[in-house]
Amino acid sequence: MKQTHFGTAPGRGELALLHQIRERAASTSLGGLRLGIGDDCALLTPRPGEELAVTTDLSIAGRHFRLDWHQPESVGHRALARGLSDLAAMGARPIAAFLSLGLPRSLTTPAGRRPAWVHRFLDGLLALAQAYNTPLAGGDLAESPIAVADIVLVGAVPRGRALLRSGARPGHLLYVTGTLGGAAAGLARLAEVAAAQPARLNPPRIPKRLEALLAAHLYPQPRIAQGLWLQHRGLASAALDLSDGLSTDLAHLCEESGVAAEVDAALLPLHPAATQAQALYGGEDYELLFTAPATARLPRQIAGIRITRIGRILKPRPNHSTVTLLTEKGPQPLEPRGWEHFS
Amino acid sequence: MKQTHFGTAPGRGELALLHQIRERAASTSLGGLRLGIGDDCALLTPRPGEELAVTTDLSIAGRHFRLDWHQPESVGHRALARGLSDLAAMGARPIAAFLSLGLPRSLTTPAGRRPAWVHRFLDGLLALAQAYNTPLAGGDLAESPIAVADIVLVGAVPRGRALLRSGARPGHLLYVTGTLGGAAAGLARLAEVAAAQPARLNPPRIPKRLEALLAAHLYPQPRIAQGLWLQHRGLASAALDLSDGLSTDLAHLCEESGVAAEVDAALLPLHPAATQAQALYGGEDYELLFTAPATARLPRQIAGIRITRIGRILKPRPNHSTVTLLTEKGPQPLEPRGWEHFS
Repeated sequence: MKQTHFGTAPGRGELALLHQIRERAASTSLGGLRLGIGDDCALLTPRPGEELAVTTDLSIAGRHFRLDWHQPESVGHRALARGLSDLAAMGARPIAAFLSLGLPRSLTTPAGRRPAWVHRFLDGLLALAQAYNTPLAGGDLAESPIAVADIVLVGAVPRGRALLRSGARPGHLLYVTGTLGGAAAGLARLAEVAAAQPARLNPPRIPKRLEALLAAHLYPQPRIAQGLWLQHRGLASAALDLSDGLSTDLAHLCEESGVAAEVDAALLPLHPAATQAQALYGGEDYELLFTAPATARLPRQIAGIRITRIGRILKPRPNHSTVTLLTEKGPQPLEPRGWEHFS
Repeated sequence: MKQTHFGTAPGRGELALLHQIRERAASTSLGGLRLGIGDDCALLTPRPGEELAVTTDLSIAGRHFRLDWHQPESVGHRALARGLSDLAAMGARPIAAFLSLGLPRSLTTPAGRRPAWVHRFLDGLLALAQAYNTPLAGGDLAESPIAVADIVLVGAVPRGRALLRSGARPGHLLYVTGTLGGAAAGLARLAEVAAAQPARLNPPRIPKRLEALLAAHLYPQPRIAQGLWLQHRGLASAALDLSDGLSTDLAHLCEESGVAAEVDAALLPLHPAATQAQALYGGEDYELLFTAPATARLPRQIAGIRITRIGRILKPRPNHSTVTLLTEKGPQPLEPRGWEHFS
């Protein structure tokens, strides 16, 4: 990790921050990482026969999170969870994470008796990194008028075994892990909580009774174990993670595979707090959406998470919508629509 | 490459931009890249016995570049050059680049008859990528109140052969590639050019006669070939790239190696337009600073770039400054000081 242009020459405060991050990152486990923060690059050592999976995810204040809604720990957790979820969708095991962080000076200085925002952000990020054996191996640090965090994840997967978006074929069945719509439902509830508390408490304190309800939004769990399971067994023909919402992500899968799909509304595993619309259009559930041949025997659960068949893959037909939703009132086109986040 | 939260659901304009980037990136050469833009992750295939070097570099408008000073092509070139230079400093060959890009909507729409800022940014970035055989393999795209670009470079180096910052030992000699201070001198001239032209021309047109002078700042060349040469021959005991200025970067090298150093002012290879202060404190020269045992025979040039011995490595002494500058008036401490960029 370098500090570049944090202020002019890095001041004492910034160098101190850099050293603190380096120390804190050193406490995360190593795995395939041979050289971490402190040089021009980190060095990663894949095992023989492995390919590397790489993904980047940008989180911007006011766009992917709100400083007045989200506790810093949740911002750090969610930034890393997005990247881990991309690895899960490939069936890759995480090797290392990198963090490029641009922050206003106010977020790097203590807030009254509380530690600086950046340290609470790192608390959330490093706790998740630890839970998924992912060392923080480097990155970049700069002063910025707004808070931005780019997370880079590097994972490893045996050569030729990665789960791609492009392998779905007509006749394959369509599955999801976990439940859908919980993140959108949690976000809606968070907005209410923030509105009901005085502005000086922003980001709002989350009442104990709401913690479980809001967890799907504030602390999503990437499905690394499920992705690895599917990759090891070779059962999934295609996979991606639900970051933009089922309607949009399924359209991506169909586009990359050159197929169409139908989803049975009655089969959707709704989160207890979610509406059907939140399940279809709400993003950031970070569940896996995958396909498998009809002959594949899938268990009811993988590593403790429910697996639900929700539809099937079809041949694309001209003048027909790519994705069809089967409802009580008959089939209807399912247009790729995102969820309005913070506007 | 994903588009996440560019607006709400990605609009037609954004999806079109994403497809355009994908098409343009596909024209860059492949090398170790097996799967590029279009899936959850890119897949990279290192050769047997290789380690991977990974680095990230954040560029923020108003901090690392100015929209009213820098042509978009230069912004794209410089963003990628920073990352390539980190690979050069490790002696790694580039495998793939990733780009996380946050942009205000105004920079993604055509400006009168000219293409949108983002396309001219990509012109600069992809031209450099092509020149260094580095495919653009993925990234992320988001709307942002300010322009931010995080560049991730992945390179490969034979296991155990990477040039580290930590290998300098007392008695080793200190070298740099190319000339020093040119980027700082070019930046100072650019500021004058911008001030002298009417604001409607910002970023300013660079007069032909100044192009060569400003090139060190606007279009720095990463020393990939020189880094690879040093790595192949095993001559360098330590190396890093000059991004923050000689005084600061040499202090980093000394810290990581646990040594001190002295620099002979008379030996510094000044850029023809640069002052000694610009050579010592001006950042962004992106030359390599490296050490080698006194017995190592180094050529005068590597791949057409001059190599200059500028000093030597010493044992650290308590109560002495880490880096000493030998001048006509005698030795004096060389404090790590950065260069004031845009403030």
